[in-house]
Amino acid sequence: MKYPPSLVALIRELSRLPGVGPKSAQRLAFHLFEQPREDTERLASAIMSAKRDLHTCPKCFNITDREFCDVCTDPARDQELICVVEEPGDLIAIERSGEYRGLYHVLHGAISPMNGVGPDKLMIKPLLPRVAAGMEVILATSTTVEGEATSLYLQRLLEPLGATVSRIAYGLPVGGALEYADEVTLGRALTGRQRLTR
Amino acid sequence: MKYPPSLVALIRELSRLPGVGPKSAQRLAFHLFEQPREDTERLASAIMSAKRDLHTCPKCFNITDREFCDVCTDPARDQELICVVEEPGDLIAIERSGEYRGLYHVLHGAISPMNGVGPDKLMIKPLLPRVAAGMEVILATSTTVEGEATSLYLQRLLEPLGATVSRIAYGLPVGGALEYADEVTLGRALTGRQRLTR
Repeated sequence: MKYPPSLVALIRELSRLPGVGPKSAQRLAFHLFEQPREDTERLASAIMSAKRDLHTCPKCFNITDREFCDVCTDPARDQELICVVEEPGDLIAIERSGEYRGLYHVLHGAISPMNGVGPDKLMIKPLLPRVAAGMEVILATSTTVEGEATSLYLQRLLEPLGATVSRIAYGLPVGGALEYADEVTLGRALTGRQRLTR
Repeated sequence: MKYPPSLVALIRELSRLPGVGPKSAQRLAFHLFEQPREDTERLASAIMSAKRDLHTCPKCFNITDREFCDVCTDPARDQELICVVEEPGDLIAIERSGEYRGLYHVLHGAISPMNGVGPDKLMIKPLLPRVAAGMEVILATSTTVEGEATSLYLQRLLEPLGATVSRIAYGLPVGGALEYADEVTLGRALTGRQRLTR
């Protein structure tokens, strides 16, 4: 008994997805097999049309289906403030917080020599002409080793341009119990303490 | 800032897959966006052609791309032995063990009143004409509550037909340490002990 070739092909393609191993690819394939044809057609065409319609904004490298993205074309946005993030998903997360009204710049990754990702593989070069003296650049890369390295690299590159370079705050997550915070986070939360005003 | 509609559609379709929540659907969508067009096209067409080429074998309800499945059309298979499983994946798992040379019957589920799955929603009816006096039917449904209920239901249905009805053995998994086995499994392994012969 062998799998039919089209089932083998489907399992192989599904197992290329991040976080999907051979076992879950098989489970997904059987699931798709059991679904009505309209549902699987909708999935396949959603994949195709997303790939056809979407591209990166030539200014900030956010995902968009227009010439420039919604943020870059919004005149109400603070044009003197750029928030640098690793991935389009990070931008969405910040938008969701509702705390930010400036522009963005999406790097599409973080510097990671271990994985062969140098600064030239990221959208760092197109960031430089966007930064002018007097502007503020917020470095909102992850607080991982790679994100920290990227932040440090950008800081050294951007400060000579006369921009104010800042880093998002480290600290306790809101709703987090002190007891469960790791010691590094707790240390950073103490160092970064803010005076309360009345 | 809003997601472009085709990205929203892709995330929605991906989050319908089993085990994929809204967050991982978003991650998968961004991943697909970053892939070369050939790769996403291959995935979409694999989904479409699997759906087009595959159907269930009208005899045993295994997945196949021919009229009857590889097992049903293999004359070397023992025609007097039917192994009943819940899903096509279970059939593959048994085939991989290399211990079985009979036929199969795939129920496409297990009886689960909690989820509204009664015996009539499974491929139980087409099993009956396949079973004749003198044959053996091995019930290889899961050892979950649903699998046990299905096994019991089938046993009552099949025994009056004059078939020998058996259930796959309960016991310790091979390579499993006694210490870590749960008490129910251990109890079943003791009850089902087999005499060693020289």
